[in-house]
Amino acid sequence: MKFTIQRDQLMNGVQDVMKAISSRTTIPILSGMKMEATAEGIKLTGSDSDISIESFIPKEEDGIVYVEGIEPGSIVLHAKYVPDIVRKLPEQMVEIESDENFNVTVRSGNAEFHLNGQDAQEYPLLPKLHTENSFELPIDLLKDLIRQTAFAVSTSENRPILTGVNIKLEDGKIEFVATDSHRLASRKIPVNGEMKGFPYSNIVIPGKSLNELNKILEDSEDKIMISVTENQILFRTKHLYFLSRLLDGNYPETSRLIPEQSKTNVVIGTKELLNSIDRASLLAKEHRNNVVKLVTKESNQLEITSNSPEVGKVMEEVTADSIEGEELKISFSARYMMDALKAIESEKVSIQFTGAMRPFLIRPADEREEILQLILPVRTY
Amino acid sequence: MKFTIQRDQLMNGVQDVMKAISSRTTIPILSGMKMEATAEGIKLTGSDSDISIESFIPKEEDGIVYVEGIEPGSIVLHAKYVPDIVRKLPEQMVEIESDENFNVTVRSGNAEFHLNGQDAQEYPLLPKLHTENSFELPIDLLKDLIRQTAFAVSTSENRPILTGVNIKLEDGKIEFVATDSHRLASRKIPVNGEMKGFPYSNIVIPGKSLNELNKILEDSEDKIMISVTENQILFRTKHLYFLSRLLDGNYPETSRLIPEQSKTNVVIGTKELLNSIDRASLLAKEHRNNVVKLVTKESNQLEITSNSPEVGKVMEEVTADSIEGEELKISFSARYMMDALKAIESEKVSIQFTGAMRPFLIRPADEREEILQLILPVRTY
Repeated sequence: MKFTIQRDQLMNGVQDVMKAISSRTTIPILSGMKMEATAEGIKLTGSDSDISIESFIPKEEDGIVYVEGIEPGSIVLHAKYVPDIVRKLPEQMVEIESDENFNVTVRSGNAEFHLNGQDAQEYPLLPKLHTENSFELPIDLLKDLIRQTAFAVSTSENRPILTGVNIKLEDGKIEFVATDSHRLASRKIPVNGEMKGFPYSNIVIPGKSLNELNKILEDSEDKIMISVTENQILFRTKHLYFLSRLLDGNYPETSRLIPEQSKTNVVIGTKELLNSIDRASLLAKEHRNNVVKLVTKESNQLEITSNSPEVGKVMEEVTADSIEGEELKISFSARYMMDALKAIESEKVSIQFTGAMRPFLIRPADEREEILQLILPVRTY
Repeated sequence: MKFTIQRDQLMNGVQDVMKAISSRTTIPILSGMKMEATAEGIKLTGSDSDISIESFIPKEEDGIVYVEGIEPGSIVLHAKYVPDIVRKLPEQMVEIESDENFNVTVRSGNAEFHLNGQDAQEYPLLPKLHTENSFELPIDLLKDLIRQTAFAVSTSENRPILTGVNIKLEDGKIEFVATDSHRLASRKIPVNGEMKGFPYSNIVIPGKSLNELNKILEDSEDKIMISVTENQILFRTKHLYFLSRLLDGNYPETSRLIPEQSKTNVVIGTKELLNSIDRASLLAKEHRNNVVKLVTKESNQLEITSNSPEVGKVMEEVTADSIEGEELKISFSARYMMDALKAIESEKVSIQFTGAMRPFLIRPADEREEILQLILPVRTY
């Protein structure tokens, strides 16, 4: 294998596939990065067997030459050292060469790295998904869906299915739902007609996979192609191939958790409420629950308080746009509330309470987007 | 105690004194921050008994009012929560009030914090230094002196005196020296005549104190006043009072470590050499020694190499401006070399070697500044 490549393009590819490579893998060769040169360009692969990422650097694109002098072949490198080496190379042109003994030479300017590689034949082959069962989403929208839901997955392995995000295709809509059983985050978007008859209409993707995917994808209105099989999901853009396993098992039916009626309705500025909860939680940060109290007052005032006997207490009044229905005193986790409010981009949120003991709902007040955040209160009153 | 203060001014003061406050102090009250209101303004104090910092916020300066409605008094607050509270206050005006039971109220906009304070009478009094034995330095220059030497102090408590920076006043010059016995960093600057007869001409300041001071001081051509007693040193600017204990004991005489003659002299671009050492050290980063080799070659070439049997090796040739004297093969710590080169701002450095077993010297090639870095080689050849 031999080729000369632009350092910046190589760096981007390396950074993407590194997201899938773990030094703590039980399969030693997976701590490596596979590099494959073909007549079309260079393919980099990283995998931790849960997630696999391929990044492709084309020989030429839009009239710009990225790779030259390709002699096809492949090799596996110690992944750990690759990002630093590439980043610190002195020149923009990088020559990479491997011989039959898996010795790799990386040359740039007057610098020369001799690295011990491994046989690419020993690297597991990634499954090639049949991509008939595919649909497309704008990248920006997929990133929003992940950001607005994946934070709510469970971090405990007690119920492994809850560490994933449930994706459902139903009634011409696609819905992302995540819950750790103390709170729930969901968002629905309409999809176009192509999805009719899509065979995998209820899958669960590990939250970790989605978070890594979100880090790799750059904001863009371009489309991403999503293909699903019984146990894997593939996200594909022009030069990226991101494969994740799916979680086994049935995701709990969450729709019945959502109260249908409410007793107290509040509309309030998202940022005002977020900042006020943030301040109220300052003194209680280290406590496991980090509980704040909310009390409705006269004249559209919400009183937010918290109390940490050793340090002190915080009190604040925030003016709501409107408070309708029964008076309310309720306690909840400040962190859950802040996560939920951060997931909502609208200027105003609408909060529906059904008494101090029942879960409450947070939605964008303008309802332009079907985002729903649910939080279970903490019993203190 | 009661006053109303500008949040941004309070924040700056809080951040400065926090640098001296440790939550792991053995004297409980020192985990607090003392706040004192007088007719002149507000004084904040933090201390870990090694370092004490006072920051003063004047009532009024240059016609701008920073503090209003002062009712004198003092209190000690749980320091840990103060920076977050101040940073997140909703409005620029902050009212702070304490009562006779040491309850403190912090109000800003609609937010109100009630904090449990402690009696300021229990906070130790900082020693007031007699400031006759004082001299002045521009803040920028002091920051340079610290940056160029303090990194070389020892991190081991085997020889406590080496954890400090030695400051000597001699022959109309002030010299900063630090060594961990494997390398040495020093810088001398001329001082004006006022220092004649200064009684404390050889002191040792803990490296940690100087590093904290460097973080607090903002780049400025203003002067800083330095006062020394037998066991303490005080750095004083308009609104800052930074007191550190001195280290006890005699600092070793370092001048005889410095070879007087050299056998190989190299002049080379500082950045070129630094980048090349950086690359050569990439594969060896985790090894304790992180050793690179340097070999002089024909035509002003320096060959820099390193070898990590498991991973691979790195080779690079750098063109020097000149190489004079004997041929040389030498090995040394890449980290020490990089630290030394970073401390030298000149475009070119001059390196004087006296064979592969003797310490070598790195200086700015233009010798405009009396900076000297010394490194002991590692014996591998």
